[in-house]
Amino acid sequence: MAHTILALADLTPEQTKSLSERDFIILSPIDIQEKDYASIEIMYGWEPILGQKILSTPNHKLQWIQSISAGVDYFPLKQLKDANVILTNASGLKSVPIAQSVLGYILYFARGLDYYSKQQSWQTMLDQYSIAELPTLIFGTGQIGQEIARQLKALGGTVYGVNSTGHPANNFDKTFALNNYQDALNQVQTIVNVLPSTNETEAFFNQAFFAQLDQAFLYINVGRGTTTDASALLSALDQHQVRHAALDVTTPEPLPADSPLWNHPQLLLTQHTSWVEHNAQTPASNLFDIFEQNISNYLTGRPLTINVVNLAKGY
Amino acid sequence: MAHTILALADLTPEQTKSLSERDFIILSPIDIQEKDYASIEIMYGWEPILGQKILSTPNHKLQWIQSISAGVDYFPLKQLKDANVILTNASGLKSVPIAQSVLGYILYFARGLDYYSKQQSWQTMLDQYSIAELPTLIFGTGQIGQEIARQLKALGGTVYGVNSTGHPANNFDKTFALNNYQDALNQVQTIVNVLPSTNETEAFFNQAFFAQLDQAFLYINVGRGTTTDASALLSALDQHQVRHAALDVTTPEPLPADSPLWNHPQLLLTQHTSWVEHNAQTPASNLFDIFEQNISNYLTGRPLTINVVNLAKGY
Repeated sequence: MAHTILALADLTPEQTKSLSERDFIILSPIDIQEKDYASIEIMYGWEPILGQKILSTPNHKLQWIQSISAGVDYFPLKQLKDANVILTNASGLKSVPIAQSVLGYILYFARGLDYYSKQQSWQTMLDQYSIAELPTLIFGTGQIGQEIARQLKALGGTVYGVNSTGHPANNFDKTFALNNYQDALNQVQTIVNVLPSTNETEAFFNQAFFAQLDQAFLYINVGRGTTTDASALLSALDQHQVRHAALDVTTPEPLPADSPLWNHPQLLLTQHTSWVEHNAQTPASNLFDIFEQNISNYLTGRPLTINVVNLAKGY
Repeated sequence: MAHTILALADLTPEQTKSLSERDFIILSPIDIQEKDYASIEIMYGWEPILGQKILSTPNHKLQWIQSISAGVDYFPLKQLKDANVILTNASGLKSVPIAQSVLGYILYFARGLDYYSKQQSWQTMLDQYSIAELPTLIFGTGQIGQEIARQLKALGGTVYGVNSTGHPANNFDKTFALNNYQDALNQVQTIVNVLPSTNETEAFFNQAFFAQLDQAFLYINVGRGTTTDASALLSALDQHQVRHAALDVTTPEPLPADSPLWNHPQLLLTQHTSWVEHNAQTPASNLFDIFEQNISNYLTGRPLTINVVNLAKGY
């Protein structure tokens, strides 16, 4: 029996052919009609209006949504849970370039490039750091956190991690629980935030958090803008609780031109672009590599195993 | 019999004690007198006026000079060779921080930080690269080149090397000879120059060299300023033979404030500071670790083996 996919993210001709050969029917959002809603089993990518139309169709067959992103905070998670729809995310797809952006942010400040890039005459600035001199604490020990840790350790770094329970994670020297991370704070110079957006992480990095720091070297956010109170961060920079910051994510996005974040001399802003590679310039580039790993289980009725989101937890 | 060292670079109290216990007499440039010149066997560091006074003293005993730097182009190499004085350099001492500066320069441009650091409103710039997308050719495969190669390969990079004969070197995927490197050029995006200053390398990176490139991503010089024709580099940037450059060394140093290098938008300048670490803020920090490795051979009359400079070749 054929299975119908609504393809909201790009598929190459080879990927389309590979699916067709396995008895999939592929619909695009351009040629879909109302009568098709009930037949859709899989959404490859997400579009909220179409998604709600399908979910509200009586006797719909929607079973599986493949997210193009690692973070899934913009999905109606409770509704999907109630409807027994499986959500798989894109975690791991952009781990390497995101980790290299994080390394770039660290070295930008550690090697004095923020200072030297503005120089117009010969002035040495000798307060530079090697990676070994900047132990790092990463909030979030999933695939992105693990890749950041791997790269930092290859350069001589010490890397601690924070996750929900403090369970061990690959590439970390030590891990701490989210309600008991304070012991790690005074051992590190750099804090990297790759937390998802959940009720638990909302404004986690607030005035009370930054008040625990004294001249920490760098705060980086490549997770979600909602986790960080931007005003509290700016105050922390002014008070030198933390000396530098690099934010790839903000609230809102796009960030308005009148935001004070644009002009703070200790702050580097990128525009939710830490994931970009020259040969993977859209969020869904290479997404099929993840999607494909679950297909044979789907076709044989076995549980999906790759990147399945816990809809109650939200990641 | 006691051996006399002229200490031109700092020694810690522990290092001084360790030498005294091994029957060394340590003189400083402040309290040295003319009558002492003939007794000096070792110069720990270099100072040209004092060095010439010692070398011109009849029956002087100078046998060994420990350079504080990896490059030794500022020494009177022929004169040392004629006088049978051994010169050991500091190669390897600053390999890790120099390699991390190189990585910082690459990621600065590869992750778009040159662009984003100047932004005042939300504009995405998607032409970013991961390390795997920027194969690198390193001119110079000594200790610094090998450490740069090691770090790049840990991040997924492909790394080729150029040395005098094309002999293999640790951490390089492939090596080429200095008179036959052209085959490598069209396979790489980044060129890193760590060559020493010698007659052979003088202005090696000139108009003819850059004319071989077409939109190469990045040229980096962390070797010596003399190896690079700065005017030719600026033209190559303007003609997009190479898209970006990062120079830690120039001719002369300090670079005058009216040099056009200060203002080129595709160029990042640092001030011969790629070697700096927070806990090693002088060139001679940790130099004793290298010096010490040769001491027992020196005391027992065996040949020195660590970082001995070939005075004919100049490195």
